Amino acid sequence: MSDLITFGETMLRFSPPDEVRLETADRYDVHVAGAESNVAVAAQRLGLDTVWLSKLPDSPVGRKVAGELRNHGLTVDAVRDDSPEGRQGTYYFEQGQRPRGSEVVYDRARASVTTATPSELSTEQFGEASCFHTTGITPALSETLESTTAELLKRAQDAGALTSFDVNYRSNLWEPDDAARVLTDLFPDIDLLVVAERDARTVLDAEGDAETIARDLGSEYGFEATVVTRGGDGALALVDDTVFEQPTYEAADAYPVGTGDAFVGGFLAQYLRDASVPDALSWGAAAAALKRSVPGDMAVISPAEVREVVAGQTETLSR
Amino acid sequence: MSDLITFGETMLRFSPPDEVRLETADRYDVHVAGAESNVAVAAQRLGLDTVWLSKLPDSPVGRKVAGELRNHGLTVDAVRDDSPEGRQGTYYFEQGQRPRGSEVVYDRARASVTTATPSELSTEQFGEASCFHTTGITPALSETLESTTAELLKRAQDAGALTSFDVNYRSNLWEPDDAARVLTDLFPDIDLLVVAERDARTVLDAEGDAETIARDLGSEYGFEATVVTRGGDGALALVDDTVFEQPTYEAADAYPVGTGDAFVGGFLAQYLRDASVPDALSWGAAAAALKRSVPGDMAVISPAEVREVVAGQTETLSR
Amino acid sequence: MSDLITFGETMLRFSPPDEVRLETADRYDVHVAGAESNVAVAAQRLGLDTVWLSKLPDSPVGRKVAGELRNHGLTVDAVRDDSPEGRQGTYYFEQGQRPRGSEVVYDRARASVTTATPSELSTEQFGEASCFHTTGITPALSETLESTTAELLKRAQDAGALTSFDVNYRSNLWEPDDAARVLTDLFPDIDLLVVAERDARTVLDAEGDAETIARDLGSEYGFEATVVTRGGDGALALVDDTVFEQPTYEAADAYPVGTGDAFVGGFLAQYLRDASVPDALSWGAAAAALKRSVPGDMAVISPAEVREVVAGQTETLSR
Amino acid sequence: MSDLITFGETMLRFSPPDEVRLETADRYDVHVAGAESNVAVAAQRLGLDTVWLSKLPDSPVGRKVAGELRNHGLTVDAVRDDSPEGRQGTYYFEQGQRPRGSEVVYDRARASVTTATPSELSTEQFGEASCFHTTGITPALSETLESTTAELLKRAQDAGALTSFDVNYRSNLWEPDDAARVLTDLFPDIDLLVVAERDARTVLDAEGDAETIARDLGSEYGFEATVVTRGGDGALALVDDTVFEQPTYEAADAYPVGTGDAFVGGFLAQYLRDASVPDALSWGAAAAALKRSVPGDMAVISPAEVREVVAGQTETLSR
Amino acid sequence: MSDLITFGETMLRFSPPDEVRLETADRYDVHVAGAESNVAVAAQRLGLDTVWLSKLPDSPVGRKVAGELRNHGLTVDAVRDDSPEGRQGTYYFEQGQRPRGSEVVYDRARASVTTATPSELSTEQFGEASCFHTTGITPALSETLESTTAELLKRAQDAGALTSFDVNYRSNLWEPDDAARVLTDLFPDIDLLVVAERDARTVLDAEGDAETIARDLGSEYGFEATVVTRGGDGALALVDDTVFEQPTYEAADAYPVGTGDAFVGGFLAQYLRDASVPDALSWGAAAAALKRSVPGDMAVISPAEVREVVAGQTETLSR
Amino acid sequence: MSDLITFGETMLRFSPPDEVRLETADRYDVHVAGAESNVAVAAQRLGLDTVWLSKLPDSPVGRKVAGELRNHGLTVDAVRDDSPEGRQGTYYFEQGQRPRGSEVVYDRARASVTTATPSELSTEQFGEASCFHTTGITPALSETLESTTAELLKRAQDAGALTSFDVNYRSNLWEPDDAARVLTDLFPDIDLLVVAERDARTVLDAEGDAETIARDLGSEYGFEATVVTRGGDGALALVDDTVFEQPTYEAADAYPVGTGDAFVGGFLAQYLRDASVPDALSWGAAAAALKRSVPGDMAVISPAEVREVVAGQTETLSR
Repeated sequence: MSDLITFGETMLRFSPPDEVRLETADRYDVHVAGAESNVAVAAQRLGLDTVWLSKLPDSPVGRKVAGELRNHGLTVDAVRDDSPEGRQGTYYFEQGQRPRGSEVVYDRARASVTTATPSELSTEQFGEASCFHTTGITPALSETLESTTAELLKRAQDAGALTSFDVNYRSNLWEPDDAARVLTDLFPDIDLLVVAERDARTVLDAEGDAETIARDLGSEYGFEATVVTRGGDGALALVDDTVFEQPTYEAADAYPVGTGDAFVGGFLAQYLRDASVPDALSWGAAAAALKRSVPGDMAVISPAEVREVVAGQTETLSR
Repeated sequence: MSDLITFGETMLRFSPPDEVRLETADRYDVHVAGAESNVAVAAQRLGLDTVWLSKLPDSPVGRKVAGELRNHGLTVDAVRDDSPEGRQGTYYFEQGQRPRGSEVVYDRARASVTTATPSELSTEQFGEASCFHTTGITPALSETLESTTAELLKRAQDAGALTSFDVNYRSNLWEPDDAARVLTDLFPDIDLLVVAERDARTVLDAEGDAETIARDLGSEYGFEATVVTRGGDGALALVDDTVFEQPTYEAADAYPVGTGDAFVGGFLAQYLRDASVPDALSWGAAAAALKRSVPGDMAVISPAEVREVVAGQTETLSR
Repeated sequence: MSDLITFGETMLRFSPPDEVRLETADRYDVHVAGAESNVAVAAQRLGLDTVWLSKLPDSPVGRKVAGELRNHGLTVDAVRDDSPEGRQGTYYFEQGQRPRGSEVVYDRARASVTTATPSELSTEQFGEASCFHTTGITPALSETLESTTAELLKRAQDAGALTSFDVNYRSNLWEPDDAARVLTDLFPDIDLLVVAERDARTVLDAEGDAETIARDLGSEYGFEATVVTRGGDGALALVDDTVFEQPTYEAADAYPVGTGDAFVGGFLAQYLRDASVPDALSWGAAAAALKRSVPGDMAVISPAEVREVVAGQTETLSR
Repeated sequence: MSDLITFGETMLRFSPPDEVRLETADRYDVHVAGAESNVAVAAQRLGLDTVWLSKLPDSPVGRKVAGELRNHGLTVDAVRDDSPEGRQGTYYFEQGQRPRGSEVVYDRARASVTTATPSELSTEQFGEASCFHTTGITPALSETLESTTAELLKRAQDAGALTSFDVNYRSNLWEPDDAARVLTDLFPDIDLLVVAERDARTVLDAEGDAETIARDLGSEYGFEATVVTRGGDGALALVDDTVFEQPTYEAADAYPVGTGDAFVGGFLAQYLRDASVPDALSWGAAAAALKRSVPGDMAVISPAEVREVVAGQTETLSR
Repeated sequence: MSDLITFGETMLRFSPPDEVRLETADRYDVHVAGAESNVAVAAQRLGLDTVWLSKLPDSPVGRKVAGELRNHGLTVDAVRDDSPEGRQGTYYFEQGQRPRGSEVVYDRARASVTTATPSELSTEQFGEASCFHTTGITPALSETLESTTAELLKRAQDAGALTSFDVNYRSNLWEPDDAARVLTDLFPDIDLLVVAERDARTVLDAEGDAETIARDLGSEYGFEATVVTRGGDGALALVDDTVFEQPTYEAADAYPVGTGDAFVGGFLAQYLRDASVPDALSWGAAAAALKRSVPGDMAVISPAEVREVVAGQTETLSR
Repeated sequence: MSDLITFGETMLRFSPPDEVRLETADRYDVHVAGAESNVAVAAQRLGLDTVWLSKLPDSPVGRKVAGELRNHGLTVDAVRDDSPEGRQGTYYFEQGQRPRGSEVVYDRARASVTTATPSELSTEQFGEASCFHTTGITPALSETLESTTAELLKRAQDAGALTSFDVNYRSNLWEPDDAARVLTDLFPDIDLLVVAERDARTVLDAEGDAETIARDLGSEYGFEATVVTRGGDGALALVDDTVFEQPTYEAADAYPVGTGDAFVGGFLAQYLRDASVPDALSWGAAAAALKRSVPGDMAVISPAEVREVVAGQTETLSR
């Protein structure tokens, strides 16, 4: 009996240490990274009982992904791919510094998870879960995953779970038009939509300010809740015709990757505990702010830290 | 024949490298850290002949503490504790980043030093020293150390040494009321008091601005000199009814731990050489500013660097 | 419903990297180490569903212990100690090289687990488990743990679980006489005893060769199975009056710490699956041999690797 | 005008440092590794003017491969693949220790080089080179490379270069039957064949001792020279009906990967300078022995070191 | 046939990692650093075919310098010094943080390059090169290099190459008067002069603003182009009586060492391709800005990155 | 009042970590190394009160040398060289592995210590010391040091200290003939001579076996004690016409550099405490054996460890 089930790809991320460049580094830090497992880790650490569904190669690096996720307490329920083609998706990441942007080189094509079908995945547990969450990255990874994502959302909704979805548009994976076609087909089976304002404009042809976007999407697709994130300008949620605004909390900007996933994990941690929408938004924003101080993609944070940020009580040093 | 003798606990500090969190790091940087040895190291490096009195377990980690301190030139005069219970105090330290505060987890209870008695310690050398210094941390560590601290201050004063004391209130070690009771009992044997404005308010129920605090404390306890530090707002010293103000020097804020001890070390280095009070204050402030750029707790700095800061002559790069 | 429940202390282990000495290293590798969790990790990795019972401080380092163990797939069921005295046990370890022995400096007194009482621990699950395992280290840690260990063994046996116990005498923790008195009191509630031949002689005044020791202990205390390990000379098991011998597999000797625990984990993994005793012994010996090539205390190994060792099929490199 | 041109794939190799396992390491050492570039590096360092032909993705990791090879002095002549599918082949490598074998996990399918066609590669320089070298790995990587390898061997031979080929059978890439069919088709265009005795048996159905194998292959395919390597038992060369034997030089066995390539590089370095066959064999064996002491896949060695090994003059320490 | 030939000393640079101080670090990062090779690396990476002329000791560290430079694609044409006195120049570098300046400790006296004579260096290739570049550091290193520099400039100019020279005054190497005497003797053979405004004032007694300085120097010595750099205030170039101004691009300030050399490399990369002067200046400024984000002395950057900075199109993260 | 005063050069040693080669490593471990300070560290750690006399540049690296030595408890009495030419001697060291020998590249010419004169050094303390020790490396470093060494030996002997001298021939520094001439001039002022059998043959034209060598040298120069070391074959001492033999203790061979110095330090530690010659030899041999397991040049060992080796009581692991 779990609170949250997420489904998606998790990669190994290779990053050069000490601000050296990918090209000249002779060792890489290895992190475990994936939008849906990032959400799962944040949610688990903030109090939910979470399952991560996926498919991993039967290899030391596949086992590494599973182990690193279990470390944070969640349950890894991954099909083991022992086919000779089974491979672990990876990406190379180099943190930028002005005027140089961060660089991402994906090497995730044909990863084991891209062959995952509904029949392999233990969807029978959907009926016992409060919420199923995935993102727009998953259907972009393969045709198989496009239909698997659709089927999983349907099964989750049929089983009575809240279906949550973060648009998470990745321009390296597909064109806006393809994304729009696939994603809008999924929308009828989605209860809670999270979308970055920028993605809404690029992919969904949304117009107007963030509130207008939320209202337009909400009314067109009938979401139970529509959350629009605006980067440094905070987020807003439209629930039952009411709009709730949430500014960002001030934060160092050392490790921005994974901020959006931490937001969703923090938001869901409260939302699924029937907290008020403003409460859920503030937990999302606090988790996001805290993530920015943690290396890697995952929000290695605690409920106490979130509470302190929300309460504005962070102290420099207590001893 | 030494200029300065300090007495107190020195711990091993374990910190995760590269801004990783304590929970996920697989190796810790090991530093040597203690308020009184930090002062001793700063003072020694800035020209004083310094002795550090303490008690250490007879183990590789006890020897490590001694070795790391000797590296900076001071004399380690530590009782060797070869009892089976002898242990080295430690603490875990995680540097914060907005909005996350730094985290300190003490593991210092029942360290070898907490059993140190006056008869074990070579106090016969007090008569040859200019100054004896300890802090309010020491009597907070055990009942034994409470009485040892009192006795050492008395012996130092009887032997003609200047007795110097930094209040250094630690809320993780004791309550303000207990601290107030114990510390004010020590005050009659103290010549030079250093106290953070915040501690004066919390522990000593001081009121008014920093100058008022200095004057009230000075007149109540008859200190030869009363130094009140105010974090980012500098410090002031009350000597012979005159108040001297010292602003902070602009500094990076990378490694703030140990700043206060560097201040005391820098101040004493000049004060004990009969420099003027403003001179001593400016050395204290410069040592503190320089410390903020040095990892660990100890001020690995030089007299030339202090002089450059005081003279406002720091250059970015000379080659 | 689990196969195996283990109970005991798990420490942080601090070791200098690169063969530097504890005294001069400026960073320590941090491993997670405890006889009972080592067994649990080996057993879980080799196919059992395993739970580790314990008590951990509510701190980043307490969470670190839990996370590192979960990584390997087992379930961590640890009471959270949020008392101010709660501390994480640690030890310093320095790998020796001839003619210098390895050095262990324990700093485990008064760790949180030493206060664990039966009422805190979720012993209600004992009825659903096949086996409960602990070691002679646990009752040596505190008087509370002495009685907790006794009570847990009773409850496990009452609930129908196999009770397994590794004598694991530690001369740094107690005298042979004390160990003998406490351990023999526990023996009536133990079904499966594992004891090193050396410990049997030192603590239990055993005499004769390993087989004699097994027969004498087995008949005196009525164990279902008695396993005597003989370091480099292998192990033997006495079950139902039959003695099974198992030589060691040839192995590098790089990381010997944890070898005995890997043996027990490997043995139990097969024994609890109703494999034959020789099968269980060979898995134990293979797990032990493999552990010797893995840094740290835990056997990061796989069933495939064990099978290859047992089958004598290890190849230098396959590509 | 170069002495040697090699053609093949070069991968990034990810290895955990400090004997940690792939599964638990949090950083990987990154090496550059490929049979043909390994040969090129050894040959270049031992005095030949060498070119490495290949195809690399237009990315930081593709540039990394090129840079690391240029470091050793050879000329990198690689087609730049800026297609979206362009990827850098990688492999994960974990050094074994008895009784655990080393583990290789290839992730090299669909690397950029697998699409390289003769028309992309600057084969016009073949006429100016003394020798063209590739291995049996290259045609195993894709159908495109199968035909490219055949065409390059033809063009090299037509241009008057010596064609050299190391069978290098990889069971992870293809079955022995497929390898036999493809490779024997290439043999008519090969002047100098290098084959491990084991591969000759597995792939080419060779029988008898190494000399018999050399004579049978030599007579069947008419090679100018046939070199059979026998692992720890040395190598032999059949040239003009004469067999020359070469034992191995005693060596540490720390870093065996790349030993065979170092042998070929050392052999060619002398053979192409018209040294005698025994000279060439001794340089090959010395380069191989030296490689075993160097981390990574490449033979970071010098002519002086080879000469010392050949002369049996290695000293422990000269200062 | 190369685009650019540079001549000068390249050192090993030893820097403590992780902001530790030189005095307490137990390992140093090793970089390869030299004004003229820095320029060569930047120019090569930005598209020129570049040669670096120098003299290196015949030792592993001499070979290291050559290898690290070749990595970036340039041709190393260095005389091999196998005399017993041959040594590799080094320097210790400690990055400062306010209020502590960076510290440079040179250990470059009597390096192999200081004995380099024109007859050793392959100046016959000057006729095939577009440009010859060196700096004011080279003649400061020894009397031999003073005359070698003069002779090389003459030979380059005679051969029809553009002669380029960066004043690069180093107060640790010589006095302003000596520098002025030697450098102004070289000026008649220089076509393109680069000088920091500060050096122009200190060494050349220049007065007025940067434009005045450029005009005065240009008219006095008849340079084809005169470039005056002004640190954070950008740069200007005087060509054919026209002054072109170039502001700096906003940049992090993490790794300022080598900024000036990156500017020259970027400027030359365009200038020698017959780009307009403003284009060349913008490439210089962009290369300089990018260098500030790269550890070490060399500009590990790409043409695409320079183009993005010039176009103002840098994005934080694209994925 | 000290037991032992040593005089000589101490260098920074740069070594690549993890068995990487000097040429390809991008960071070097930094050790502090010098024959005479190695002896001083071993002797101090084994119980003597030791002073190290020398001359160091006034720079962070000069201070580093002093600090690292003080760490081990000895007194550093080094003249501060603030001349612009003052430099810190260094050497590059690469550990070999069969068949590759270790490589040493000295960069110690013109180090600050090479200018040290007797008048700079505080020789007035010679009268209070039991022993003065230096080695044959010191007079080889400069003409100044040749005469300083002679003068210091004379002053020590005049002051009543035992004069101890280790021949330590370095072929990279001088020819055997030069060494013989200079060293034999010093012999009349030497009481205790230590010489490797190999050096005795190479430099002093000694013949016969080790005992013959000791007797011939002893009778020719009238040493109070003559110690001949024979590498893996142990050592012997001739005192008062009696020869004492000492075999080596079995040891790992990981870090052989500094073994001879550890021997001398261990020998002196007992010899100066008036232990018997066999006792002193066994301490020397045990210190040497222990050193072989410690990275770097210095014997980071303890009296307890030496006693265990001498008693043959080393255990693999005690816990």
